[in-house]
Amino acid sequence: MSAGSAAARAESGAGDPNQRMVYMLQRAARVSPDGPAITFAGRTRTWAQVADRCARLGAALAGLGVGRGDRVGILAFNSDRYMEVFFGPAWIGAVFVPVNYRLAVPEMVEVVADSTPRVLLADATHVDQAREIAAACPGVAHLVYADDGPAPEGFLEYEALLAAATPGDPVDGNGDDLLVLFYTGGTTGLPKGVMLTNTNLYANAMGGVAGYRYREHAVFIQCGPMFHAAAGSRVYSNTMTCSHTIMLPHFDVETVFRCIQEHRVTVGLFVPTMINMMLHHPRFHDYDLTTLHQINYGAAPMPEALMRLALEMLPGVVFFQAYGMTEASPIVTTMPPEWHATDGPRAEKLSSVGRPAFHCDVRIVDADDNDVAVGEVGEILARGPNIMKGYWNKPELTAQALRGGWYHTGDAGYRDRDGFIFLVDRVKDMIITGGENVYSTEVENVLYRHPAVKECAIIGIPSETWGEAVHAVVVLKDGMTADEAELIKFCRDRIAHYKCPRGVDFRDRPMPLSGVNKILKSALRKPYWTGHRTGIV
Amino acid sequence: MSAGSAAARAESGAGDPNQRMVYMLQRAARVSPDGPAITFAGRTRTWAQVADRCARLGAALAGLGVGRGDRVGILAFNSDRYMEVFFGPAWIGAVFVPVNYRLAVPEMVEVVADSTPRVLLADATHVDQAREIAAACPGVAHLVYADDGPAPEGFLEYEALLAAATPGDPVDGNGDDLLVLFYTGGTTGLPKGVMLTNTNLYANAMGGVAGYRYREHAVFIQCGPMFHAAAGSRVYSNTMTCSHTIMLPHFDVETVFRCIQEHRVTVGLFVPTMINMMLHHPRFHDYDLTTLHQINYGAAPMPEALMRLALEMLPGVVFFQAYGMTEASPIVTTMPPEWHATDGPRAEKLSSVGRPAFHCDVRIVDADDNDVAVGEVGEILARGPNIMKGYWNKPELTAQALRGGWYHTGDAGYRDRDGFIFLVDRVKDMIITGGENVYSTEVENVLYRHPAVKECAIIGIPSETWGEAVHAVVVLKDGMTADEAELIKFCRDRIAHYKCPRGVDFRDRPMPLSGVNKILKSALRKPYWTGHRTGIV
Repeated sequence: MSAGSAAARAESGAGDPNQRMVYMLQRAARVSPDGPAITFAGRTRTWAQVADRCARLGAALAGLGVGRGDRVGILAFNSDRYMEVFFGPAWIGAVFVPVNYRLAVPEMVEVVADSTPRVLLADATHVDQAREIAAACPGVAHLVYADDGPAPEGFLEYEALLAAATPGDPVDGNGDDLLVLFYTGGTTGLPKGVMLTNTNLYANAMGGVAGYRYREHAVFIQCGPMFHAAAGSRVYSNTMTCSHTIMLPHFDVETVFRCIQEHRVTVGLFVPTMINMMLHHPRFHDYDLTTLHQINYGAAPMPEALMRLALEMLPGVVFFQAYGMTEASPIVTTMPPEWHATDGPRAEKLSSVGRPAFHCDVRIVDADDNDVAVGEVGEILARGPNIMKGYWNKPELTAQALRGGWYHTGDAGYRDRDGFIFLVDRVKDMIITGGENVYSTEVENVLYRHPAVKECAIIGIPSETWGEAVHAVVVLKDGMTADEAELIKFCRDRIAHYKCPRGVDFRDRPMPLSGVNKILKSALRKPYWTGHRTGIV
Repeated sequence: MSAGSAAARAESGAGDPNQRMVYMLQRAARVSPDGPAITFAGRTRTWAQVADRCARLGAALAGLGVGRGDRVGILAFNSDRYMEVFFGPAWIGAVFVPVNYRLAVPEMVEVVADSTPRVLLADATHVDQAREIAAACPGVAHLVYADDGPAPEGFLEYEALLAAATPGDPVDGNGDDLLVLFYTGGTTGLPKGVMLTNTNLYANAMGGVAGYRYREHAVFIQCGPMFHAAAGSRVYSNTMTCSHTIMLPHFDVETVFRCIQEHRVTVGLFVPTMINMMLHHPRFHDYDLTTLHQINYGAAPMPEALMRLALEMLPGVVFFQAYGMTEASPIVTTMPPEWHATDGPRAEKLSSVGRPAFHCDVRIVDADDNDVAVGEVGEILARGPNIMKGYWNKPELTAQALRGGWYHTGDAGYRDRDGFIFLVDRVKDMIITGGENVYSTEVENVLYRHPAVKECAIIGIPSETWGEAVHAVVVLKDGMTADEAELIKFCRDRIAHYKCPRGVDFRDRPMPLSGVNKILKSALRKPYWTGHRTGIV
C-alpha cells in the first residue's frame, strides 16, 4: 500500500488493508524464516520457503490470466502444495475454491460451474475427474498438475510454473476481500459457495489461537480434509503462531501414531470417531505419544465413556471442543479443558458444545427471532467478524441466512444458566406435531438403544390431525427382527407419548447419505410430502 | 444490520460490519449477564448493567445532537463511567476523545480545538479546566458532569441523562469506523490525534488475549490512566474475556495491595517503576497477593535486578512484557514468561522487548526503508490490523508515518538471530557524527554509572567537522562534583571514542520533561540549532 492509497482508504471507508492473510504469511517468514512450516511426503519447507513459493504461485497464476477476484479451484488430497493454495491466489487478490473430493463428478461439476474458476489444480489421484470437470466447464482455461512427477497430458506442471515465476509483493487489497469459497451442501440440497473474507478467516484464526490458548511454534498434525473449513482454517492459525504442520494426505490411525512420535507433534484436530479409533487401535501402546499435549475436536460432543477413556489413556493431553460451521469460518463456541470433567458438578457440561468463542456472539431465538429464555430450545444464531459475507451468487439465500445481521445456523439448541450451549437438533429436522416440538435426535437416541436397530431416522410426515406426525425409518441389524408395535412401545416406555413414532418403515437397503456421511432426511421425507404444500423438504 | 444492508455491504466492499466493539459488549452481556464487569468506588456493575448504561449513554448523546462520526471528549480520572465512554459514543457511531489530565490547560485546549467534540465530559476534579476549555472552544455545545453528587453550574448530569434515555440497538456501522482519537504528543511537539478504528482495537485486543494466554473471567486491576492506549485498550480485551475490572482512579501502591487482596485480583498491568515501588513498599508482606498470577508490563524492559526480585517475591506470577505505541493500538511485540529468565542462555533476552505479537509484523530498516541484516540497528516498522488509520486532520504526517504501508515507529532497534527485538534509541535521538551512528541511550547508560551523575541526556549539536557532535547535558547529584574532562574520560574508558561526548553542559535546574515524564531532548537541542537548517528539533 502506498501512502497515497492509505489516504484514499481513509476516504473510502474500505476494510482494513492490513487484515490480510498474505501479510500473516509474510510475518511468519520474517519472525521465523528458518523455522519449519510444513512437512509432507518426507520433505520439510521453512516459512521463508513457503512464502517464496506462495509469491511464485501468485505470479504464475497471474501469468495464466488470473486477476483480482478471479477464482482458482483445487481438487486434491491434502499436501504441502494444497497449503500454498491458501495464500498463492490471495497474493494477487484471487479467490481459491477447494473442491470436496468425496463428491461424485456431477456434483463437482456443479461446484465448478457455480464458482467458474479460470484455473483448476489437481493431484495425481484426481487427474481424470479434473479432466471431466474441465470438459463440462468451458470457463476452466488451464489445468495444473499439483503433484510429484511429470504432468499428465493436458496439464501444466505446478513446479515448472513456480520455477519460472518471478515473485513480487502482494497486490493491494483489504480485509473485506474474498479469500475462499468453501462449498457446503450438507444435508440441505444444492451446493452453496460460502464466501469467506480475509477478515472472516483472520477473526476465526486469532479467536482460535486465543480460545485454544495456543503458543508459538506448535507442531500440528493435519489429518482432516483441507477442503473443509475446520481443517483448512488451521492453516491460518498455524501461520499466526509460526507452527509446524505435519500434513497427511488423509486420516490413517497408524500413520498418525508414527508422525506424532517422529515429529514430536504437540497438537491435533480430530473428530470423536477418530479419537475412538486411535484409543482402540491394537498398536496404541507401541508409539511414544507423550509430546501430544492438546487435542481439538469437533463435529460432535464427546460421549462420556470415550472422554473417560481418553483422559485415562492420554493423561498429558488437554481437550478443547469447538462447535461451528463453514459459514462461521468455522468456530462459534469452544469448550476448554477445565470443563471436560466426567465426574462432579461440571460433568453435566460434557454434552454441551461450550460457550461462545471470544470472537463470536450467540443468541437462541424462536421462529420470530425473539430471544427465548434460559433452558428453552430455539434456533442458534451467531454474529461476529468470522461470519461469512454470504453465499456466492445467491443473494436471496444470503439475505435469508443473515437476516437481522445474524447468521441463522439452522441448529436447534438451548443455553443453560452458566451460558453453555447444548445442541438438540437441526431446526429443519424438528417436527411440530399437535403444536408440540419434537427433536428427532432425542427419539433416535431412544431407538438406537433397541438391540435390533442398526440405523434409524425420525422424520415428520403429513398428518390431517396433527399437522405433522412423528415417523420412524429403521434399518435392522442382520438377522435381527422387530416389528412396528414393538418399536413404538419401546419408545413409549422411555419418552413422552407425543414424541413417539406413530408409524415405522423398515428399510432393507442403507440410508441415503450426504457428502459428509450424514443421513439425508430430506430424501426420506420426500415421498411422503409429494403433493403437499410445504417448504420443509 | 438489516438483510438489505448485508447485501449492500457485499456490493460496497466496506469493512466488516461485525468487527465492532459495541457488539463485543453485547456479547459479554449475553455470555455473562450477571458476571461482574467493573468495581469502582465500592460499587459493582454486571455486564448486563454496563451494556444497558452504554446504550443509554449513546441515546443521551444522540439527544445532545451527537451524530455519526462526531466527537465526544472526556477529561477525568479513571472511573466506571470512563469505561462506559469506551462504548457509549460508539453505540451511535460517534468517536470518543480522552484528554490527558496531566496536560496544562492550554495543551488541553489544543487537543479539544483539534478534535472539536460537541460534548465534553468531566469529573469533579476537572470541572474548572473543562469550563476553561469550553470557553476557549465554542464547538463544545455541552458539558456533562460524569461524577457522583449534583452537577455544578453549567454542566448536565451524566446520571440524569442516562436515567432519561431510552436504550436502543447500536446504529449500523463497520469495523473501519473510527472508535477513538487518542492524543499523543510524546517528545515530538504538537499533539497528534491517533485515529483508531474498531478493527484496530479489535485486532489489538484479540491479539493481546492470544499473546497473553488470557482466560475468561479474569479479575483485572486497572491503575494506569485510561486516556493512554496501553491502559485504555484493556477495556476491550477485558470485555472479550468477560473479565472483572477493579478500577482505581490512579496508581497508589497500598490501594493496589488492598484491592488485590479484597477482590482476589488475578491480572495487573504495571510499568517497571510501579513494580519497583510495590516490591519495596514496607507493607508488601501485610497483604495477601497470592491470587495474582499474571503481570503485564511495558514502557520499559525490566532491569535484571528488579526482575530477579520480582520472581523471588511474587513466585506465583508470570510476567509478560509488551512494547508498542498508541499508533499500534498499542501492542507491537510481546515477551512471554518463558523468556523472563535471569540465568542461563535465555537471560540475554531479558533486555529485549520480545518478538512480534501474533497480530503484528515488524521490519527493521535503514534510512531508505531497506531491510537491514540480523543484529544491525535500524528503524522499527510495524504492520498489522492494529495500525492506526492515520493522524486526525494531518494527511501529510499520516502519509509520512505510514509510507509504504508500514508504520514508522521512530524507534531504533535490532533483531537477534532468534527474532527478538532490542530497542536502542529513538531514531530522532540518534546522532550521526562523522558518518557513524551514535545511540544516545548507550552513552547515557555509561554516564549514569558515574557516581556524581543524577540525570543526563545525550544530544547531537551542530559541528562543522562532523555534521553533528555528541554532546552531554548533565545534572549532578546534590553535593557531588565532576567536571567536563572527567566525565568525557569516564566515557572514553568504557565505549568507543566516536560515541563519547565532545562537550558537557552542567545544568543546575531539572531537565525539561514531556507530558509522560520523558526528558524533552528537543528542548535541549533547540538553543544549539537555532539558525541552522535542520528538521531534527
